Amino acid sequence: MSDTDAASATGRRRPRQRVRTQPAAPAFLRRRVPAYALLAEDGLAALERQAERILAELGVEFRGDDEALALWRNAGASVEGLRVRFEPGQLVEIIRSAPQCFSQHARDPRHTVEIGRDAVVFAPAYGSPFVYDREQGRRYGSLEDFRNFVKMSWVSPWMHHSGGTVCEPVDVPVNKRHLDMVYAHMRHSAKPFMGSVTAPERAEDSIEMCRILFGADFVDRNCVILGNINTNSPLIFDGVMSKALRAYARANQAAVVVPFILGGAMGPVTTAGAIAQAHAEAMVGVALTQLERKGAPVIYGNFLSSMSLRSGAPTFGMPEPAIAYLAIGQLARRLGLPLRCGGALTASKLADAQAAQESADSLWPALLGGANFILHAAGWLEGGLVMGYEKFALDCDHLGMMHRLLDGLALDDNALAMDAFREVGPGKHFLGCAHTLANYTTAFYDPELADNDSFEQWRDAGSRDAETRAGARWKALLAAHEDPPLDAAINEALCEFVARRKAAVADAWY
Amino acid sequence: MSDTDAASATGRRRPRQRVRTQPAAPAFLRRRVPAYALLAEDGLAALERQAERILAELGVEFRGDDEALALWRNAGASVEGLRVRFEPGQLVEIIRSAPQCFSQHARDPRHTVEIGRDAVVFAPAYGSPFVYDREQGRRYGSLEDFRNFVKMSWVSPWMHHSGGTVCEPVDVPVNKRHLDMVYAHMRHSAKPFMGSVTAPERAEDSIEMCRILFGADFVDRNCVILGNINTNSPLIFDGVMSKALRAYARANQAAVVVPFILGGAMGPVTTAGAIAQAHAEAMVGVALTQLERKGAPVIYGNFLSSMSLRSGAPTFGMPEPAIAYLAIGQLARRLGLPLRCGGALTASKLADAQAAQESADSLWPALLGGANFILHAAGWLEGGLVMGYEKFALDCDHLGMMHRLLDGLALDDNALAMDAFREVGPGKHFLGCAHTLANYTTAFYDPELADNDSFEQWRDAGSRDAETRAGARWKALLAAHEDPPLDAAINEALCEFVARRKAAVADAWY
Repeated sequence: MSDTDAASATGRRRPRQRVRTQPAAPAFLRRRVPAYALLAEDGLAALERQAERILAELGVEFRGDDEALALWRNAGASVEGLRVRFEPGQLVEIIRSAPQCFSQHARDPRHTVEIGRDAVVFAPAYGSPFVYDREQGRRYGSLEDFRNFVKMSWVSPWMHHSGGTVCEPVDVPVNKRHLDMVYAHMRHSAKPFMGSVTAPERAEDSIEMCRILFGADFVDRNCVILGNINTNSPLIFDGVMSKALRAYARANQAAVVVPFILGGAMGPVTTAGAIAQAHAEAMVGVALTQLERKGAPVIYGNFLSSMSLRSGAPTFGMPEPAIAYLAIGQLARRLGLPLRCGGALTASKLADAQAAQESADSLWPALLGGANFILHAAGWLEGGLVMGYEKFALDCDHLGMMHRLLDGLALDDNALAMDAFREVGPGKHFLGCAHTLANYTTAFYDPELADNDSFEQWRDAGSRDAETRAGARWKALLAAHEDPPLDAAINEALCEFVARRKAAVADAWY
Repeated sequence: MSDTDAASATGRRRPRQRVRTQPAAPAFLRRRVPAYALLAEDGLAALERQAERILAELGVEFRGDDEALALWRNAGASVEGLRVRFEPGQLVEIIRSAPQCFSQHARDPRHTVEIGRDAVVFAPAYGSPFVYDREQGRRYGSLEDFRNFVKMSWVSPWMHHSGGTVCEPVDVPVNKRHLDMVYAHMRHSAKPFMGSVTAPERAEDSIEMCRILFGADFVDRNCVILGNINTNSPLIFDGVMSKALRAYARANQAAVVVPFILGGAMGPVTTAGAIAQAHAEAMVGVALTQLERKGAPVIYGNFLSSMSLRSGAPTFGMPEPAIAYLAIGQLARRLGLPLRCGGALTASKLADAQAAQESADSLWPALLGGANFILHAAGWLEGGLVMGYEKFALDCDHLGMMHRLLDGLALDDNALAMDAFREVGPGKHFLGCAHTLANYTTAFYDPELADNDSFEQWRDAGSRDAETRAGARWKALLAAHEDPPLDAAINEALCEFVARRKAAVADAWY
């Protein structure tokens, strides 16, 4: 895979200054602070040993994908029926060919992101059937909602990625949605995006549309689309997912391999066991991409959560998954793989204190744990059932803060400020000193939604809480949207492809 | 200072089972995860060098405390007028006699806390003139409010400490408030607490009341009260504060030395400069306690915040102070001192998404930075102007989660769950397996206020947001309160002391 031809044909099709709506914002974030080391060598080795033991003793099942079974057989795994077992160390060896870091190209090359090592990419939430805003309440998502979130992600300076199924466009037939979704990402944004995984042919369609947008040759040599593949925990890969995974890998595109484990349901109720299982499943999925196409980009993913001990309901932003994210980060780094982990997760129904606290508690361990691709970084509500407009705006502001946090501490002479101390001295204030004047426009993150006014100012302005203020913010984001320029011939070819594929089959609603 | 006589006379005065309202909750938290290492040696050395440079070149001023100046002169510092300058390394040498860790004794020894090393103690917010709850709104704090927060801290399993001025009892004369406050901590709680610092004689009164409660000899040998001493940044110690600091140290009680720096106002606008200044000021205050009484317990404190670049208003929970907390933690550990840092800080006027997010963003870096004493851990609103009832309940729940987080990851055979994998195998669920049944009551933190119900359940129960639910929770905390037993003779002596001291002077309201 080559990253040298990033300034592809698509980059020349529009004037630079038109596209760059957010000149100050980076295409992606570089973490300049160390990853947190939760566990020492013995702890990490214990988790790895347990994963290898699960893989050797129990293995995983591949259901409905004979080609995958053949690949495993050829690679020397033990295949009995649908069950595949692995010698300790076997998957680690296969995984070595996966890149530590790769670029996912955007059609505007200034929005191309790196995924891996110290790069961090924020993408909106994924997969909710419902949307929510304060005025219209909770309702099924529509294609218009889908487009709205794509547009807001394009405008927000803190969102690096357009995401995938930012909400389900429930008003479009199930078997045709992916065409409208991928087209919306291509048309209303020039940030990188994700494709369909719900059927192998939908994955193929998504990649085919990329070939129209980027050129087939470019796509074969570069990653331009991601596919998010959940395992069927515990220890199952069903054919729909494994075939979609292989479709992405075969096209040299990146699968995100995500064990989705609710501790106590799809994995053990104890965190260490759930981590070991997730590690085992992720290694299997990652290795399969390398068997399909050696060197294909791939992301080691994780989605671990807990449950309410009273009701069995899934819970989010709890301390046990936070601990798990920190450990998982270390495991992924030891494999040398880019990591997807965390997000702004919550079980709350609206953007209240619960939502913000749980989201922060999910984001901190992902970031300090060294996650590289943070899906669900904005908008997530109600355990992923709902994409929230206000929540999206609040989360984006928080992501802006996290840009600052991960930037770490400047320690140059200006930052150490000896001149300021000399100018001001004991008992005076720094408000008007030369050092303050020289630095004040950049010294602090300028929050979009935090209210720092006096109580009287706040009361007189209507005593609005954060969710209410966020209602104005998302509308402003949406109002600021303009489609980035797209070559007319390419647009026409994309529309023609979508129309042709839609016409080829009858609508299906399941 | 001796910790061996913890089971003091006060511990024998009441039956154990009556006092322990929360049998499962620990007296304090032990951090079993590593502190985060933000900076490497060179970065830490740069901050330390800058602090030493400030101290050598500019020094600090001691205003209105000739005894402090005399102590500095005797210790070999350069004293010119009010200005005291220090040779590099001089303060570090003096600080060596301060204990790395000490016990603050509670009148019920089961609530005695350790402060230092890997111990973490949560205390409620401190110092607000106003209180807020949803029903009665924002208003001046009263003695009844003060008692309410003391009572709720006694009942909450996640609060280790009763705090100090949990809100200002504005209905009591300024010069007599401290008597009612200290008595309320002693009467309505058996957790450790803080005394007055607003005048040297009020500090003395606070300590004298401890002598009545614990016995004079016990107090001389053990820490039973803390005094929170803010420096007058930049680089000033006024006499009120330095005399109170010395009063606590002289009595072998712990001063918390807290540079209070709003970057751009009381310190440089750049974070590294503000950290260096805070480090310099904290070292001066800590060293002064050791000159007053060698070996006296003391806490290295920090309160750094940022400001709105648009309005100059103070901001809380922003990324720059978060980074600072992580660095400060490293600096305090290098000095071998217990650290006070962070809290559940916010500029929000109510317990909304802003409040929760800013509070989480203040708490995470304090905890991962290794803070030992977390003041303002619950209740803080509006930049410290307001103590919030709902916020208090929400924060306490969050502190419960943090108990789990800091407990780290269990990696024993039960946690690794091999038996569960063998029992369940691929494609089944873990809900009813033996391992889940054996572990489910303790596997996950059980949140007090998070709503994890389905949307329909939540809607049918009234669509209550987290702040609304917290309204019921704080009322339940308060309703559950019972005064822990207190020896009648001691109670009488305390009341007599308070009455006598109140009668000795006229009311003053400033």
